[in-house]
Amino acid sequence: MSETRRAAEGRVGQVKEVTSLANPIVKDIRALALKKYRDVQGAFMAEGLKLVIDALDLGWTIRTLVFARSQRGNATVEKAAARAKAAGGLVLEVPEKVLTAITRRDNPQSVLGVFSQRWIPLKDIRPASGDVWVALDRVRDPGNLGTVIRTVDAVGAKGVILVGDTTDPWSLETVRATMGSIFAVPVARADAAAFIGWHKAAKMRLVGTHLKGSVDYRAPDYAKGPLVLLMGNEQQGLTDDLARACDTLIRIPQAGRADSLNLAVATGVALYEMRRHAFPVTQGKAG
Amino acid sequence: MSETRRAAEGRVGQVKEVTSLANPIVKDIRALALKKYRDVQGAFMAEGLKLVIDALDLGWTIRTLVFARSQRGNATVEKAAARAKAAGGLVLEVPEKVLTAITRRDNPQSVLGVFSQRWIPLKDIRPASGDVWVALDRVRDPGNLGTVIRTVDAVGAKGVILVGDTTDPWSLETVRATMGSIFAVPVARADAAAFIGWHKAAKMRLVGTHLKGSVDYRAPDYAKGPLVLLMGNEQQGLTDDLARACDTLIRIPQAGRADSLNLAVATGVALYEMRRHAFPVTQGKAG
Repeated sequence: MSETRRAAEGRVGQVKEVTSLANPIVKDIRALALKKYRDVQGAFMAEGLKLVIDALDLGWTIRTLVFARSQRGNATVEKAAARAKAAGGLVLEVPEKVLTAITRRDNPQSVLGVFSQRWIPLKDIRPASGDVWVALDRVRDPGNLGTVIRTVDAVGAKGVILVGDTTDPWSLETVRATMGSIFAVPVARADAAAFIGWHKAAKMRLVGTHLKGSVDYRAPDYAKGPLVLLMGNEQQGLTDDLARACDTLIRIPQAGRADSLNLAVATGVALYEMRRHAFPVTQGKAG
Repeated sequence: MSETRRAAEGRVGQVKEVTSLANPIVKDIRALALKKYRDVQGAFMAEGLKLVIDALDLGWTIRTLVFARSQRGNATVEKAAARAKAAGGLVLEVPEKVLTAITRRDNPQSVLGVFSQRWIPLKDIRPASGDVWVALDRVRDPGNLGTVIRTVDAVGAKGVILVGDTTDPWSLETVRATMGSIFAVPVARADAAAFIGWHKAAKMRLVGTHLKGSVDYRAPDYAKGPLVLLMGNEQQGLTDDLARACDTLIRIPQAGRADSLNLAVATGVALYEMRRHAFPVTQGKAG
């Protein structure tokens, strides 16, 4: 190990070459596969050169940039590495097998960034008229959470609030499903009581989706005031406390069985309805 | 093995007790994890007692019902087993470890059914006014395909057409994501040329989503005539040939980056718009 380090320190540009999975820096990165180590380190991984560059552009703090040896000499990778270094990050050059081990993928991306997690405090959310936030009650599935974050970005909503015990937004699976939107969408967290208290104090209209919702999702006027769309857990829907806290309970009509929409799809359908007024309808020749 | 079989044949109700993963019937079921064996057998697996009962109710052909030994004496399971047997299926009682091995899950459901695949021929689709079908061009992700099938069921669309080389609708991952809708939603398949020929002959209006679509997805009048919503591949969107074949190219407006919606979410948003007229808006007190 110390031999590898000595060799690396001799290289131009201070890129560390690491070949062993036993290297302590690599071990720390691999540990990020588990939530407890992500929590301890306050860090997470994102894969792909484009994502890493986007994150740097958006001012995220990069701790380590890892690239595959095959990328040596790639000008875009070297530029990203220089930016990472200038921002105080470490840069590692590794054989592909190390990237495979870190990401648990057969064909890993050739660049990976380790970034500091960034939670926004609930109290810092100061919603303006027209803002839409999404709150997720005990969301379990990393793919659903990532897809909701991606949809929030697409529809121009402001951010996501995780309520209660949810899946971790910084897991590799969630980050993958966001397709880069993790760097564009603020994420907050709160327990149910704190969330309910906050929504009252912030005077945000709370709109929950509920199978027993009495209002069709297309009926409310969403143009008024700031809104929070609150979605329940995949299996159980909203808790009674959260449902009671809602100003409006909406329902998406379903032709099939009672609860047949996937959480991320239901969130997308509701969000596009809530932001309908924000997108003027293009008048094209509509065949 | 032959000893196990002799023992099983002696049991009341002709339930076969199987304990070994080397049992040829179990090996055939485990092989269904791979597409080539699903193709050869023309079969697929679905997990869960409720799903198996739904499938039997809907007239699907069950080949084998497998249940965990712990369920012996469970009246609902025994009734389902009797129905499977009456329909000509085989019934296996197995230790949980066999279910774990078959489904590759740590906590497997205690009932599993092996069913015959069911493709509907494209020529048998005779759309009536108001019908909506979804066609997916080279869909890659099993979760996306399953979620689209689930959404088609929820929104009351008629079925799914797989165009070109797609992920397999009969994989365990896709079937799981459908949450049972695989048994309610007809699935057809075709190469792009056959699909284009069919849509012309069937006089179905073909509505494609496209980043360069000139028409906002809310602009067309979808109440006229039968429709096919055509969605492109996750990475590449629609092929040029398919885009050209469309009667209308719609676009879902996006605030963030150009192509930031997940395929299943985009399909859900478009489908709920296309079926908007089919669901009367409930007038509740819309806060």
